[in-house]
Amino acid sequence: MASNNAEELITSHDPNHPANLICELCRKFYTLGWVTGTGGGTSIRDGDKLYIAPSGVQKELMKPTDMFVMDYESKDYLRRPQNLKPSACTPLFLAAFTMRGAGCCIHTHSQWAVLVTLLCERTSEPNVFSISTLEQIKGIPRGYGPEKAGNLGYFDTLRIPIIENTAREEDLRDTLEGAIRDWPDAHAVLVRRHGIYVWGKDVAQAKTQCESLDYIFQLAVEMHKLGIPWVKQ
Amino acid sequence: MASNNAEELITSHDPNHPANLICELCRKFYTLGWVTGTGGGTSIRDGDKLYIAPSGVQKELMKPTDMFVMDYESKDYLRRPQNLKPSACTPLFLAAFTMRGAGCCIHTHSQWAVLVTLLCERTSEPNVFSISTLEQIKGIPRGYGPEKAGNLGYFDTLRIPIIENTAREEDLRDTLEGAIRDWPDAHAVLVRRHGIYVWGKDVAQAKTQCESLDYIFQLAVEMHKLGIPWVKQ
Amino acid sequence: MASNNAEELITSHDPNHPANLICELCRKFYTLGWVTGTGGGTSIRDGDKLYIAPSGVQKELMKPTDMFVMDYESKDYLRRPQNLKPSACTPLFLAAFTMRGAGCCIHTHSQWAVLVTLLCERTSEPNVFSISTLEQIKGIPRGYGPEKAGNLGYFDTLRIPIIENTAREEDLRDTLEGAIRDWPDAHAVLVRRHGIYVWGKDVAQAKTQCESLDYIFQLAVEMHKLGIPWVKQ
Amino acid sequence: MASNNAEELITSHDPNHPANLICELCRKFYTLGWVTGTGGGTSIRDGDKLYIAPSGVQKELMKPTDMFVMDYESKDYLRRPQNLKPSACTPLFLAAFTMRGAGCCIHTHSQWAVLVTLLCERTSEPNVFSISTLEQIKGIPRGYGPEKAGNLGYFDTLRIPIIENTAREEDLRDTLEGAIRDWPDAHAVLVRRHGIYVWGKDVAQAKTQCESLDYIFQLAVEMHKLGIPWVKQ
Repeated sequence: MASNNAEELITSHDPNHPANLICELCRKFYTLGWVTGTGGGTSIRDGDKLYIAPSGVQKELMKPTDMFVMDYESKDYLRRPQNLKPSACTPLFLAAFTMRGAGCCIHTHSQWAVLVTLLCERTSEPNVFSISTLEQIKGIPRGYGPEKAGNLGYFDTLRIPIIENTAREEDLRDTLEGAIRDWPDAHAVLVRRHGIYVWGKDVAQAKTQCESLDYIFQLAVEMHKLGIPWVKQ
Repeated sequence: MASNNAEELITSHDPNHPANLICELCRKFYTLGWVTGTGGGTSIRDGDKLYIAPSGVQKELMKPTDMFVMDYESKDYLRRPQNLKPSACTPLFLAAFTMRGAGCCIHTHSQWAVLVTLLCERTSEPNVFSISTLEQIKGIPRGYGPEKAGNLGYFDTLRIPIIENTAREEDLRDTLEGAIRDWPDAHAVLVRRHGIYVWGKDVAQAKTQCESLDYIFQLAVEMHKLGIPWVKQ
Repeated sequence: MASNNAEELITSHDPNHPANLICELCRKFYTLGWVTGTGGGTSIRDGDKLYIAPSGVQKELMKPTDMFVMDYESKDYLRRPQNLKPSACTPLFLAAFTMRGAGCCIHTHSQWAVLVTLLCERTSEPNVFSISTLEQIKGIPRGYGPEKAGNLGYFDTLRIPIIENTAREEDLRDTLEGAIRDWPDAHAVLVRRHGIYVWGKDVAQAKTQCESLDYIFQLAVEMHKLGIPWVKQ
Repeated sequence: MASNNAEELITSHDPNHPANLICELCRKFYTLGWVTGTGGGTSIRDGDKLYIAPSGVQKELMKPTDMFVMDYESKDYLRRPQNLKPSACTPLFLAAFTMRGAGCCIHTHSQWAVLVTLLCERTSEPNVFSISTLEQIKGIPRGYGPEKAGNLGYFDTLRIPIIENTAREEDLRDTLEGAIRDWPDAHAVLVRRHGIYVWGKDVAQAKTQCESLDYIFQLAVEMHKLGIPWVKQ
């Protein structure tokens, strides 16, 4: 329940405070075409608090006062802006936070992400995007835990699961959680005809992975147009 | 007729004042390629007044003093800048304001809008752009009134009417009004080989719909290049 | 010959002073991809003086002190920055100023301009780019003088002459002047595998025409990829 | 070994100080898509010192305090920021500095560079990118020394060697040095499925060459899509 001093939660001069950082990230994501038309979303975990961008707002114009703040343990809102709706992505962000210990989760509607899900649909393996032998693959972690430390190597194959979209964003929860369980190394899940969820241990990792994946998806679409296979033979 | 205190109509420190907001929107639209080469236009209704960007100016350099202000009831100009011409879009903006109760109407020359009108021309249904099963469709309202509240769903088909372009922009009025009557749910009308008119109940709705549609048109062109049908079978 | 007070020629707080305006335009052109890698150039006539951006500089970093100033009648330099070279475009800019009374001439290396010259090369009319029935054509003047006042109409065909590139930019002068003579209505000349020269009576007209043409060239390349003819049958 | 006054090496109000300039360049390169997701790198030689951007950081957020400084003769680090790793590009930058007397070396992951290496792979000459008869080729130096002074001409063929990528960036050193030896005129080396290394005698030359090459690669990909050969017959 929102306390009287909830404004303290989102008021800081520190540009790296989550309430400021989410606004700055969303401005950047807007210019990248990731959160067009109020699409997409971003969430940061800061200790026992989750900061979540609201639903349905112009992401490039967001202010710290627009931010929802949730208690991580109880899932109660510590701060709930009047006249704004919580993000429909919230249960999906929570999947990454609770199941993978993420510190930041980003959801984009990137057109390149959507296009690779459409191209995969026509292959013999419609539920996974696979690509290999590109330097930028090194921007993606190998998995979790000490035995999977570090990032993928140049000769590895990056594999990102694809789940089907649902009528309501909240309904993605079960299949997203399923994909996270089925793909224990994954740091991202594509949603067909919709976009992508990407997470990392902190903002820098989540954001740079999101950038690397978007670069790879754009390159993959261009490679397809030029008749170049995604996985090198 | 312009009164002596017409400057009051466009002078404000509030960034959300229509005269300031139109300038800010047009700067953003310029970077999106929507108002290249003085193309396109924007209008906001503020109670009994309409604020309209002038014709033939560099949209990214527009100043509040460039703004035309019209009395909504009488259609008389309350303010008419010297040496500028009223927008040829004015009768078209009025159609959205009067027939649909719009609060903001945006006209762009987006290349993606033009390209989908060209692609539709070759289909069996040349006068409508139809696409389905994309998350971004949820950015578009279902229609008007309580029984059509809310936005389209993921499994719905978005349909935008296309009208033929005319020699003079003013001459689009009859067919635009006709399309608005014939498509009672529409929040936008495409103009073949020209661009699009998009409106909403307020600036945020008009602008975010315009973004969602442009995203969808760009995706549609890429889908066409990749041989992916717009309406899922 | 540079006089002692040559700094006065390029020192002004007015953002519309030619020395300031050329810098601002070139920053904008850089973000549009028109003057990549020191390519392209810009010149403004201000009464009896010509202001010309130098050769071989990073266009987005240009300062008023980098500007060359030429006396329009004598063609003598009134200001010649040390360590900079005059633009190789100078004789080509002069053709537009003297033969067409231009107030501003812009030269870009736009990739879309280059691509349409390459596509035209394979047609039966390799020395002219023709396109019709696009709203954006209205951004281009019909010609010169009272009987050709106003801009092209929607149903008109825009025709831009294409000349062959030469080893040295200066050597384009004869063919550019020839094209200007042979195409008495033209406000622009394409140079094959090189870019475009666009001029107008003032900065606003030259720049907005340059934008409209670039929009049209980009659209033309996309239309070609989609199998849509440039001139409507 | 880092001395006590190492902060002096990277503290300056001069925007052209290497520590400031690398940050400014990387911000620009980020918007160009060259250093997405911590990819790419930049290094400047300033007399007896090398300034090198660190590994694995968000390039658009880099600060002068993130900079590594190396003594050019001894190759000892004069400054090594805590918690940052030296760039894996360092031995490759050194190849350009020592073998070609470069003053600046830039490494990008440009998608256009990657795509041309993929397209070349399918040709009879997979280890070189060749293109001719484009004005922008004039942005690239002919070679080194007085007898190769000046830049390539319009009718020349630009040839850039392509080396195969390796599992670790450091392992590119031998083949990159080999390519520099085998191609005595080259100012850049493409790395298959990875990106490009570009150098010049100073920052302006390296950066503008990098821009010209990227422009040429993008144009080459578009030419390929349109069926236009890279080397004019």
